[in-house]
Amino acid sequence: MAATLVEKILARAAGRDAVSPGDIVTIGVDLAMAHDSSGPRRWQARLEALGARLWDPDRVVIVSDHYVPAVDAESAAILKQTRAFARDYGVKHFYDMKGICHVILPENGHVIPGMVIAGGDSHTTNAGAFGAYAAGFGATDMTAIAATGETWTTVPDTIRVEITGTLSDGVTAKDVMLALCRDLGMGNHFKAVEYDGEAVRAMDMEARMVLANMAAELGAETGLIAPDDVTLAHIRAHGGTVGDDAPDRWRSDGDAVFARTFKLDGAALAPQAAAPHSPANSADVGDHDGARIDQAYIGACVGAKLSDLRMAAAVLKGRKIAPGVRLLVAPASARVTAAAAKDGTLETLIEAGAVMLPSGCGACAGLGAGLLAAGEVCISSTNRNFKGRMGHKDASVYLGSPYTVAASAIEGRVADPRPFLTGRRAAA
Amino acid sequence: MAATLVEKILARAAGRDAVSPGDIVTIGVDLAMAHDSSGPRRWQARLEALGARLWDPDRVVIVSDHYVPAVDAESAAILKQTRAFARDYGVKHFYDMKGICHVILPENGHVIPGMVIAGGDSHTTNAGAFGAYAAGFGATDMTAIAATGETWTTVPDTIRVEITGTLSDGVTAKDVMLALCRDLGMGNHFKAVEYDGEAVRAMDMEARMVLANMAAELGAETGLIAPDDVTLAHIRAHGGTVGDDAPDRWRSDGDAVFARTFKLDGAALAPQAAAPHSPANSADVGDHDGARIDQAYIGACVGAKLSDLRMAAAVLKGRKIAPGVRLLVAPASARVTAAAAKDGTLETLIEAGAVMLPSGCGACAGLGAGLLAAGEVCISSTNRNFKGRMGHKDASVYLGSPYTVAASAIEGRVADPRPFLTGRRAAA
Repeated sequence: MAATLVEKILARAAGRDAVSPGDIVTIGVDLAMAHDSSGPRRWQARLEALGARLWDPDRVVIVSDHYVPAVDAESAAILKQTRAFARDYGVKHFYDMKGICHVILPENGHVIPGMVIAGGDSHTTNAGAFGAYAAGFGATDMTAIAATGETWTTVPDTIRVEITGTLSDGVTAKDVMLALCRDLGMGNHFKAVEYDGEAVRAMDMEARMVLANMAAELGAETGLIAPDDVTLAHIRAHGGTVGDDAPDRWRSDGDAVFARTFKLDGAALAPQAAAPHSPANSADVGDHDGARIDQAYIGACVGAKLSDLRMAAAVLKGRKIAPGVRLLVAPASARVTAAAAKDGTLETLIEAGAVMLPSGCGACAGLGAGLLAAGEVCISSTNRNFKGRMGHKDASVYLGSPYTVAASAIEGRVADPRPFLTGRRAAA
Repeated sequence: MAATLVEKILARAAGRDAVSPGDIVTIGVDLAMAHDSSGPRRWQARLEALGARLWDPDRVVIVSDHYVPAVDAESAAILKQTRAFARDYGVKHFYDMKGICHVILPENGHVIPGMVIAGGDSHTTNAGAFGAYAAGFGATDMTAIAATGETWTTVPDTIRVEITGTLSDGVTAKDVMLALCRDLGMGNHFKAVEYDGEAVRAMDMEARMVLANMAAELGAETGLIAPDDVTLAHIRAHGGTVGDDAPDRWRSDGDAVFARTFKLDGAALAPQAAAPHSPANSADVGDHDGARIDQAYIGACVGAKLSDLRMAAAVLKGRKIAPGVRLLVAPASARVTAAAAKDGTLETLIEAGAVMLPSGCGACAGLGAGLLAAGEVCISSTNRNFKGRMGHKDASVYLGSPYTVAASAIEGRVADPRPFLTGRRAAA
């Protein structure tokens, strides 16, 4: 029977030959992940009450990324509890202040095609870029998963998103996702979104992660991309083990049944920006009429990997940010920071006037540095611009790619990055 | 009549030929400085009630350094008010998120020998390293100064501190100050402390600033060092204008009367660490018996200038911090960050495992990243380890030089840096 990629993964995890959309199945979880906000502090009392331990301490990954570094004693206490839990429960993979969980997982070879990954965070979908079924769960479900290694789910049907053509210079995976949030809306609940097409196949894994990550903004259960040689090479370069047969095994059959296929013409896509207060408020960046900004923010799992920092540096090289604008850069992981320090990217950003922030979810999650006052306007490379998420409820946040955020920092208003990439504007 | 340096400055500022300790004088202020915590938000309502403007917007320096970058909407609102004030009151020198005020002043050539500098911060004394009378004032006094350019003071008598000999490798101005906090105590109220001697004359300006800065920890009104060629060269390299006659004019006369002269044998000094909860709890670093640490912090006006970061890098080069220890580095200014990015210092620190924080007062002032939970232990290159200042009241903070903080981060306990500087320990 023909099956989609999601159906194949869930059938395997349920120990069945096949599953169909709508089936309720009990599945084994291959990897459970939680962070300092969603993990130990939510689990510990329940586990203790049950007298339960972790089902497999080698397969529970804990990452401190929300309250790092602590900005008050309460945050410090959460981190302290997280560290103590990791030690006391024998968690093998505890990443303390090393970066954002969704980036930490692939950076350390934890994500393999065909896996079921349950994470205590909505952007757990990020791991779907590797052809895994990766979904976010609430604290109660995650506690049960941590204790048993099992959960249940309804098998989702799949929306196939085909991105055709070649993206232009200055147009990124982020622009694709902002366009999709507008075109597909944010209400694709209980769906899987599978991305494919020429533009997807041309993307490196960091760009593919953006597609999978922002499946959360589409409202989907998960977003995923069938593995190929690019996937395998990335996994192996990051210490993971994966068989050569993964691309054959973990793909939707040619005659699989999709709930819908949506085609996006990648070649025609211009840089996008989403207006406050929704990623679905996207339009070509030029349509935002040069809205004035106070702050430009490059951060978060979706927008501050090494390629993102390099995009910003490509725009900012030899230039300065506008007077009165602040540009904040929070690299997605310590490893990203180290690589950017080594290759000169940090120097370029700092020279241009950027303020470096520690790695972590930071202002994207309404924590850490970079929060906004009433009436302030920010453009951000993060994934969500919901009202009040990044500070005061009367602040406004635009979303864009790191190219667009950097160009906007230079202009002091929402700006198209392409002129800065084609040499049409001289460096200062 | 023979006079001390302080008496000469205050006589000039009072328009008198001479003043004596105990005289109450009205003095003209040459430069007023305030930050986002002590400045506009404390001044604005009073100025508006008085219908007053700034006495001289070119001589009021405003620096945002406490609430930067904002970690909550309230902080963001304080910054917003600070920016609006700087604009509406025509403040010529507004440094927004460029670094810590005490480092910003000399970095931009604002501090000249013989000046009276009134600052809304206790470590305003830092500027005394250039032979200025620089003192901290409360918000009410600062508002009056901002409006009138005048204030009153009691002429302090002077404690002369002579630091003899040559400091050993791994022994710094910070170690000198920790030793002095122990030897002189923290209760030298209404005194000026004038530093001199062979070890002081051998120091660069960044080290001299440490002496002047921590006059605040001695409880003194001000701390100062008579200018010399090192002073003049530094001022000129940073855009300031100063006459060649400054060293002759702004020095204590040979027969000036000091309240006390204290000699510290610099050559015999070992690296110091101050135990919780007072800078006066100092002893040779070895006497702290290897106390275990959770966090190492390199930051603040006194401990995160370029030379401080380079000290840390000298210890950390090719090494890694201990597992379970976090090393946080908050450069004192954006210019320091840029220089450290350029010369490879940042790369060394990051490679060793340091987490970079934005420039600002940060955890030293109990704001921003790096605060501690109950029971946690930190060693810090900052100037104060008062109970509860850096997070929970039941946290403990040791103070040490950047060398000592870096060595402690490697060892996971309070450690002597000298073995890391003499090649006795191999790099990892």
